[in-house]
Amino acid sequence: MTVLRTIEECRAWRARAGVLALVPTMGALHAGHLSLVAEAQRHAHQTLVSVFVNPTQFGPREDFNRYPRPIEDDLALCQNAGVDAVFNPAADDMYSAGPRAFIDMPDLTGVLEGKHRPGHFQGVCQVVAKLFNIVQPQVACFGQKDFQQLRVITAMAEALNFPIRIAPCPTLREADGLAMSSRNRFLTTDQRARALSISRALFFAMETFDSGVRVASRLVTIMQRTLLDVGNLGHVPLSIDYVACVDPLTLKPMEQIDGPAVCCIAARVGDTRLIDNVVLGA
Amino acid sequence: MTVLRTIEECRAWRARAGVLALVPTMGALHAGHLSLVAEAQRHAHQTLVSVFVNPTQFGPREDFNRYPRPIEDDLALCQNAGVDAVFNPAADDMYSAGPRAFIDMPDLTGVLEGKHRPGHFQGVCQVVAKLFNIVQPQVACFGQKDFQQLRVITAMAEALNFPIRIAPCPTLREADGLAMSSRNRFLTTDQRARALSISRALFFAMETFDSGVRVASRLVTIMQRTLLDVGNLGHVPLSIDYVACVDPLTLKPMEQIDGPAVCCIAARVGDTRLIDNVVLGA
Repeated sequence: MTVLRTIEECRAWRARAGVLALVPTMGALHAGHLSLVAEAQRHAHQTLVSVFVNPTQFGPREDFNRYPRPIEDDLALCQNAGVDAVFNPAADDMYSAGPRAFIDMPDLTGVLEGKHRPGHFQGVCQVVAKLFNIVQPQVACFGQKDFQQLRVITAMAEALNFPIRIAPCPTLREADGLAMSSRNRFLTTDQRARALSISRALFFAMETFDSGVRVASRLVTIMQRTLLDVGNLGHVPLSIDYVACVDPLTLKPMEQIDGPAVCCIAARVGDTRLIDNVVLGA
Repeated sequence: MTVLRTIEECRAWRARAGVLALVPTMGALHAGHLSLVAEAQRHAHQTLVSVFVNPTQFGPREDFNRYPRPIEDDLALCQNAGVDAVFNPAADDMYSAGPRAFIDMPDLTGVLEGKHRPGHFQGVCQVVAKLFNIVQPQVACFGQKDFQQLRVITAMAEALNFPIRIAPCPTLREADGLAMSSRNRFLTTDQRARALSISRALFFAMETFDSGVRVASRLVTIMQRTLLDVGNLGHVPLSIDYVACVDPLTLKPMEQIDGPAVCCIAARVGDTRLIDNVVLGA
């Protein structure tokens, strides 16, 4: 496995590679990322994992500084997974001193994460477009756990005609249902137990949908109640950022669920903000 | 010469081409465009000219509908110039129904054309990024006549790491000094005579600079006076959009000219808006 530390090294390596799949990550890799690697390996001769905690997608009050950066562990996991190259650039190589370029997807970013994290998707699109142009992969793999990100990137690739196929990959969950996330490592035992109510709420919405309910507001209410139900455990409830049932293409809230739909939750457990979603009728 | 009418045809042709240079145009080709083709041919084995009047870079009150579209003349000129392929897509192939993507270059577009044509460079960057991804050239040629556009595109290519070299090409002028432009064909004989004061003002600024003047405001005043001087011909003066002396990299107005500088003018002659510039000390 080759470790590429600069854009120049990455371009030189890429020029000698064949059909290539990119797995863009911010590191702190877990089994969810490794499932993206496995998907990448099905699509291409070679797989490159980028590990870069992108400053431009974090807001001023967000957890950029706190975000975990266990690069040696990440390299070992990639090596074991049969990754061909890891691209781990420095921030000042990725963002040099010249004029900045941002990419706006105004039709998709006024809701959900885009609404709660202003500028987040500008930064995500910026870094992903840069990675697309540096790595020039034929395929890029993104997890469904970041559902809006997957949709925004897919739409960006289409709207700007990037010659790259975006491969969506299912969310991986812990045995008890918690969606895998690099931020889970911030959770205390008590917080982790409370965080479980997110996946529980989503599964409850899915069961309710499967039982025939098609009114989105009923599913939203069910999810909110589950998140706020402190039960008889004496737990503090989560702080909800949003609970929504949206069209997976437009990301607009639905009233009657008469086609594909996604239930999305963002909530804070202590200082840690978690997101998760389930696709209904999938 | 191959004429490509769809993105799909263009991609298929590109896959078989070698080192490729792109000359993006809105058609209505003149000798200035053909000098871009000649420059392209010096850089690459094959040259593709795109001819597309991009709707997203025109404001609601601008001349999108009036913009000339002499496609048969353009094809004949390209054929004679030894162009290998012309890409002439339909607007609904370039802009399909999905979510839109815009590219912002906020550090460069608050001045000059960007200030006077809100949204213009968002549309320019959008279509150029699309063309870059569809055509995947090694080189793309842009004229210095559209100085801010050249700077914005160069900076976009750098900031988003497009693997494409941007080749700047000098402005071509008529014998009397008027910068070649597709919009010159709108001018009546009288308007054309009046339009000459634009290049005259720029040349006067250049001569003044060459004589040792380094105070930008003096050059700006000289240009404004030249543009507004109706002389003894009884002409109506031009309507000035802006007259400026700016840093060629930051596009910020200069006070003391202690390095590279560009004088830029935008003015209206009747319904026709013209721009031109000269680089000082070049």
